Amino acid sequence: MIRYAHSFSAFDDPDRHLLGGKGADLARMVRLGLPVPPGFTITTDACRHYLARGERPPGLDLQVLAELARLEEQAGRCLGDASNPLLLAVRSGAATSMPGMMDTILDIGLNDLTVEGLAMVTGDERFAVDCYRRMLQMFGETVFGIPSASFGEVLDAVKSEHGADLDVDLDVGALRTVVERNKAVCEQEAGRPVPQDPSEQLVLAIDAVFGSWRSDRAAVYRRRNGIPDDLGTAVTVQVMVFGNRSAASGSGVAFTRDPATGELGDYGEYLPTAQGEDVVSGVRTAVPLSALRDLDLASYRRLRSVMGTLERHYRDMCDIEFTVEEGRLWILQTRVGKRSPAAAFRIAADLVEEGWITEDEALLRVTGDQLAQLMHPRFDPAHPRPVLTEGLAASPGAAVGRIVLDAATAVAWSARGEDVILVRKETRPEDLAGMIAAQGVLTNRGGRTSHAAVVARAMGLPCVCGAGDLEIDLERRTVSVGSGHVLAEGDVVSIDGDSGIVFVGARRTVGSEVVEWLEGGIVRGDVVPAVARLLDRADAVRRLGVRANADSPLDATRARRFGAEGIGLCRTEHMFLGDRRTFLQRALLATDETERRSSLAILQRLQKGDFEAILARMDGRPVTVRLLDAPLHEFLPDLTELAVRVALAERQGGATRRDRDRLASVQRLHEENPMTGLRGVRLGILHPELVRAQALALFETAADLRDRGVEVDLEVMVPLVSAATELELMRSLVIEAAEDVAERRGRVAFRFGTMVETPRAALTVPELAVQAEFFSLGTNDLTQLTWGFSRDDVERSFLPSYLDQGLLRHSPFASIDVEGVGALVRRAVEDAHSVRPDITVGVCGEHGGDPASIEFFDEIGVDYVSCSPFRVPVARLEAGRAALRHGVGRDEPRPGQVNDIDPLPGADAPRAAATAGISG
Amino acid sequence: MIRYAHSFSAFDDPDRHLLGGKGADLARMVRLGLPVPPGFTITTDACRHYLARGERPPGLDLQVLAELARLEEQAGRCLGDASNPLLLAVRSGAATSMPGMMDTILDIGLNDLTVEGLAMVTGDERFAVDCYRRMLQMFGETVFGIPSASFGEVLDAVKSEHGADLDVDLDVGALRTVVERNKAVCEQEAGRPVPQDPSEQLVLAIDAVFGSWRSDRAAVYRRRNGIPDDLGTAVTVQVMVFGNRSAASGSGVAFTRDPATGELGDYGEYLPTAQGEDVVSGVRTAVPLSALRDLDLASYRRLRSVMGTLERHYRDMCDIEFTVEEGRLWILQTRVGKRSPAAAFRIAADLVEEGWITEDEALLRVTGDQLAQLMHPRFDPAHPRPVLTEGLAASPGAAVGRIVLDAATAVAWSARGEDVILVRKETRPEDLAGMIAAQGVLTNRGGRTSHAAVVARAMGLPCVCGAGDLEIDLERRTVSVGSGHVLAEGDVVSIDGDSGIVFVGARRTVGSEVVEWLEGGIVRGDVVPAVARLLDRADAVRRLGVRANADSPLDATRARRFGAEGIGLCRTEHMFLGDRRTFLQRALLATDETERRSSLAILQRLQKGDFEAILARMDGRPVTVRLLDAPLHEFLPDLTELAVRVALAERQGGATRRDRDRLASVQRLHEENPMTGLRGVRLGILHPELVRAQALALFETAADLRDRGVEVDLEVMVPLVSAATELELMRSLVIEAAEDVAERRGRVAFRFGTMVETPRAALTVPELAVQAEFFSLGTNDLTQLTWGFSRDDVERSFLPSYLDQGLLRHSPFASIDVEGVGALVRRAVEDAHSVRPDITVGVCGEHGGDPASIEFFDEIGVDYVSCSPFRVPVARLEAGRAALRHGVGRDEPRPGQVNDIDPLPGADAPRAAATAGISG
Repeated sequence: MIRYAHSFSAFDDPDRHLLGGKGADLARMVRLGLPVPPGFTITTDACRHYLARGERPPGLDLQVLAELARLEEQAGRCLGDASNPLLLAVRSGAATSMPGMMDTILDIGLNDLTVEGLAMVTGDERFAVDCYRRMLQMFGETVFGIPSASFGEVLDAVKSEHGADLDVDLDVGALRTVVERNKAVCEQEAGRPVPQDPSEQLVLAIDAVFGSWRSDRAAVYRRRNGIPDDLGTAVTVQVMVFGNRSAASGSGVAFTRDPATGELGDYGEYLPTAQGEDVVSGVRTAVPLSALRDLDLASYRRLRSVMGTLERHYRDMCDIEFTVEEGRLWILQTRVGKRSPAAAFRIAADLVEEGWITEDEALLRVTGDQLAQLMHPRFDPAHPRPVLTEGLAASPGAAVGRIVLDAATAVAWSARGEDVILVRKETRPEDLAGMIAAQGVLTNRGGRTSHAAVVARAMGLPCVCGAGDLEIDLERRTVSVGSGHVLAEGDVVSIDGDSGIVFVGARRTVGSEVVEWLEGGIVRGDVVPAVARLLDRADAVRRLGVRANADSPLDATRARRFGAEGIGLCRTEHMFLGDRRTFLQRALLATDETERRSSLAILQRLQKGDFEAILARMDGRPVTVRLLDAPLHEFLPDLTELAVRVALAERQGGATRRDRDRLASVQRLHEENPMTGLRGVRLGILHPELVRAQALALFETAADLRDRGVEVDLEVMVPLVSAATELELMRSLVIEAAEDVAERRGRVAFRFGTMVETPRAALTVPELAVQAEFFSLGTNDLTQLTWGFSRDDVERSFLPSYLDQGLLRHSPFASIDVEGVGALVRRAVEDAHSVRPDITVGVCGEHGGDPASIEFFDEIGVDYVSCSPFRVPVARLEAGRAALRHGVGRDEPRPGQVNDIDPLPGADAPRAAATAGISG
Repeated sequence: MIRYAHSFSAFDDPDRHLLGGKGADLARMVRLGLPVPPGFTITTDACRHYLARGERPPGLDLQVLAELARLEEQAGRCLGDASNPLLLAVRSGAATSMPGMMDTILDIGLNDLTVEGLAMVTGDERFAVDCYRRMLQMFGETVFGIPSASFGEVLDAVKSEHGADLDVDLDVGALRTVVERNKAVCEQEAGRPVPQDPSEQLVLAIDAVFGSWRSDRAAVYRRRNGIPDDLGTAVTVQVMVFGNRSAASGSGVAFTRDPATGELGDYGEYLPTAQGEDVVSGVRTAVPLSALRDLDLASYRRLRSVMGTLERHYRDMCDIEFTVEEGRLWILQTRVGKRSPAAAFRIAADLVEEGWITEDEALLRVTGDQLAQLMHPRFDPAHPRPVLTEGLAASPGAAVGRIVLDAATAVAWSARGEDVILVRKETRPEDLAGMIAAQGVLTNRGGRTSHAAVVARAMGLPCVCGAGDLEIDLERRTVSVGSGHVLAEGDVVSIDGDSGIVFVGARRTVGSEVVEWLEGGIVRGDVVPAVARLLDRADAVRRLGVRANADSPLDATRARRFGAEGIGLCRTEHMFLGDRRTFLQRALLATDETERRSSLAILQRLQKGDFEAILARMDGRPVTVRLLDAPLHEFLPDLTELAVRVALAERQGGATRRDRDRLASVQRLHEENPMTGLRGVRLGILHPELVRAQALALFETAADLRDRGVEVDLEVMVPLVSAATELELMRSLVIEAAEDVAERRGRVAFRFGTMVETPRAALTVPELAVQAEFFSLGTNDLTQLTWGFSRDDVERSFLPSYLDQGLLRHSPFASIDVEGVGALVRRAVEDAHSVRPDITVGVCGEHGGDPASIEFFDEIGVDYVSCSPFRVPVARLEAGRAALRHGVGRDEPRPGQVNDIDPLPGADAPRAAATAGISG
């Protein structure tokens, strides 16, 4: 016989997967000798059985009865005893906390008889009847699924009949009316009464809690938080205690440290003469926890002692729900408390300082996402502004500025000192100068991996993408939204890259102390020392290298300051934009050989300047330069725009010969699917002269720097390779250029390698390794091709729907798809290292800055990750955490390591999350 | 010491990989006691060493001297002996025949002294001097790389000085002048004389033949014929015999059966008083072989006897080069003869009939490509026409008709009885009706896997694609080409889908007897019985099933006639074109729910009609219906065209509201990369009502047919799945529809499955197999995604250059890429069968009809291939061959199985190929 119901005291080492977080923590408290109302827990196994078969598992009912008998003995009262009734609270409790998502039913055991017994025993008839009407409502809502509005109407009607403003103004007679009418609501809407038999109440309540796992809101919450759908919830059944029993009673919540800042002290709230639900509903205003000292010093002292015991036990900040019943303290629940990112770092570092945990443990208690949140300015919550529209949260941070509708205006206005927000239908490479000049970017089209989003994240620039109801009128120079709101160019907006919300006007922001410190070494505020300490520890323990993706001197400087060990991806596409685009067009398309050569020579000279600044700043650290990857058409005018212009001109007396020719050549070069068309190495194979020009520029720059005594560690990388023959050809071109330079300037050392970003490259790594001294896994393209998802398109068409419907837990572009793309990557890394043990394998896709992906890359033996400079500290931290997890074996939870299981929400969450679960 | 030089008689079982085809066959003939001029062969090992290191391997020179000494002993003459000189022929001979591609040098050993000795011994001074001037020219060309034109000029000058029309008109004095001038050409152009030392001549000649492996034309030939670049050639050194020595001498070529038809008899040519090269050059016209009987009965009889010996030995048709020197027959070379596709079938079947080989051996001697060539009409070689332009050979066959420039005209003209060729810039799904009405298709854009090409191949319709210099003027209704030729709509052209050539005017064609037989059972001509016999055998031995891709009743009928065991892919995209497009647009885009529902209902009713005809015709054989796959934008107007139209209308007083709205919604739905955008299962997930409508139509049709007593074996297939969750959702939709129909009509049996066409699907087959009862490998999309090649784009941009540069041996869309895509497919098949042993795994990409791919699919355990109806017989034949190859172990060549190594060219090739190699 499987055991499904367990007394709180049944376990030495309670398992939260079996008992739920609440059940396990209650069991721990019982073992610690803390004053917990007695009770028992029904396991998640029972719930899963119930959900799968639609019935409670065999044996459960008997076990519940046995546990109930034990409770009655402990409490000295019996369920349904009309003279001194035992009342029960039935609560949900999943392994992973889902605050406010699932159901609770209190006061089980009350019926027409026991309510009178309760009145008699407590000597407070009003209290007893009030409990009964609440119980009827909760039961009706939870077990019968009756909307709470139906009960609200009853209460409102009775209040108005009795001329009462608040619930507390109702006398016992009025409350008895509410009881009768609540019963009627149940019979009417559910077609059956709330059972009078307390055992039947209990069984139905347990079923209802099981079933609440499947409620829509719980399902949505799980999907959003990546919690598996098949875990189920445990159910705790606990003797009721009453904070609303008398003036010497009350309920509250306490934190052992400040969940917002991490500071030590008394944090929490207390509400006299109240049940926990009253604290939540905010009917009356709670007082600060410190006020309990004056109200009830004995209970306050006991609570402080419990808080100490719990912090010592969990070796972490705890969040405690308690009730004082007639001067007696009861602890209803505890858990490792949720906290803001700043508090997470502060608490972890303080606990090390206080000797409770090691630095490694501290490192495991903070996350890269928390660090990322500490790294960008945020809008001041105390300064709300009206919402203009909402898009995708594409690049975090808060930005305020005047709307500008094109890159040129952005550059011009920014030059005269204006903060601007670049608002475009979508961005293209030629918008780059405008993006650099802007404080933030807002687009109408494109997803989290659109050009705007990717570039913005790389630059640490706040960005909201794909705000679908935004209409941009370039002639009238206005922006309008579905609601009818129209803004002119120059009007101020505030965009929130963390939420995707766009506000009208300027919203106040608060800057990041962490970035200030990283950029300038200035320590301001309490969190920076904690971050510094844990980043140091991460650097000390991590195996994974961290490089940055950087293709400008500015990025290179920031990469070094933020702790990158090199540049893992220096793209060269951006170096061919603006004025240089013309030279590239001529170099590729000119039919005149002299013109072609001179354009190439100019490009080569310009590239030298680009490379020199970057290589010099990295001063001997490795720099991986990727040969031109951009699709040819990115350097050509837009087909539709050009076709319209030519057609209009033809109508008005004829287009120019030049425009006709341009249209013809753009049509000829137009591709249906540019993402899988002429780009990357393919461009180099059709235009070897371009590869040669880039290689010569690189090697000559390296020779110049060497001659000036600057150390250079150069890697030359080929993009989008699918076959070893492509790589072989590129290698011979690059080596030829290197030998040319060597003849004139002496030998320049470099390593030759390739991106692995097509599935075929991943599958044929052993052949590629013959040519390559290093590999860089381009997980963006690899994800596109493995899934057959064009990221530009899917994020704005079907991916949102996939996430909503739960077909995907997260976008595979945000976090690596371990089963699919991960399988290819794992194989590629294994093959590379086994064929060529000295080979270096890095990751330069956006996943290189994603915490979950970094853990995976560490696990499979990737040598380094490369990410945008702003993600470098995040990657360092996560690489350290990954090393520790893999060092200790990731499947063995360490004691006190509980918070790794809970998802940790943002800064605003702890208060709401903590109070939402209060009851009793 | 490695042995590099081997006498012809050194081997019992000569190895063609070591000795080359020529060397191995000479060795065989020596063992058969045939009159072969003595000689020796230098191995391909030696060549590879030479090519890798740039020098002859150590020991080779000594071995050559030793073999030479043996030759001198056998011949009774010595190299360089002024009184009776030995002369040698030095020839190339690779393992795989590369006719005419590599070099030969004759008469090695002649110098200023030996030429006089030769004159003396033969008593023919003119003959000796003629040999000398030829030798100087060949040596100059081959060893020194002097253009043959330089020697041609010498000869022309001397002829004109001597008033001679032909070479034979030159007297010995004139020839001595040629000798002197040829020497001068060498000294002048090579900077050195042809060495007088015969040993030096020999060594340089050997080096030159080694080096000719690397000549451009040889490299191009290998690339075109898929011959690896690293094999190298063997070199045979053989005693010269002289067909030009006297009137009782001559040279010829003989076939043991007719290489054009396969008929038994005397086939070949003989040229008296000539060396083999004269037969090739066509200076004089050769006589039929039978004429030798009258000229030299003894030699003729000896030759007939040799022919018999060789056919018995090779158990196949042989191609023999011979020389008669002063009445003595010498066999210079033999090989299994190249033959036309018709001859291949005829000879194979006849040899079975004659008892020489088994049916299995016969099956291994014909190929699917040969059968395919027999299945389409060809242009009559006897009726040439001027060439208009040239494009890609996209779908084989010959078609003649009037040019029509759009689908509507094609339908209209065809309806009044005209044969038409649809000429379009490129085709789109809405051109389908025009393609059905046309005899052939010609496009300006798109590659072998463009829409036009794929659909044309599926329909067996000749197609030339991507004729880049074609300009279509839709206003003037003309077609022009780069050469300035302009044709009007209605003018007649002839397109050759085998060569990609387009002719002006009507070229005569000859129809396919094989197709006539398959379609009507009529046996006409000699080749049909042979084809029938070998197809029967293939069906008897093959393991691999063969189904057809068919989505019309016509295709279904043809599929059955051509021997398909079912329909492996019934696409439903074409069912939504034409008038129905409007209904689909409404069903997907209408905001009015009633309109949406009524459109869906109409589509559902129309689909029933489509399905009924196809299912009924397949009468109980499996039919796999794929749910709608097309990208949404295929059902929308072209963005650029619409934008131009709206812009023009705006300029002229304003566009209509409807057009503006359409433009806005097309812009909204426009995708950058539609191939990886909203299509396949993704469309079904966003529009489940469409899936439901299709499923209801299918199941209701099946119920109707069952009620009428027609057997139905239905498979429902989901396209473009990347994740098991997608499939799970689709499955629930399909099952729901099936249950709906079951309630009303009783249960209808079906199997549910999915395409495996994204790399992720291939990698996660075990998860997909939980939902799927069958898989169909969509190797077209899988190839696109694995390589990152958009087939629409790459075939017209860089793929041709990749093939030219040898980066790819063949397009991965034409023949499966075994290393990359193949690795995914192999893993998918293994995983599927191991996780779910009863699962069926088919292939429905175009590779299903490609011979090399079929062999691979058989090897890895695919259950069936599905291809266009016209490829079904090819697939049956190749599946049979694959079964035999895998049955006997593909690495053990069977005796007499030589022709499997040689690539067999088309019908026109044997004569040219056979004579090109003649010498001596």
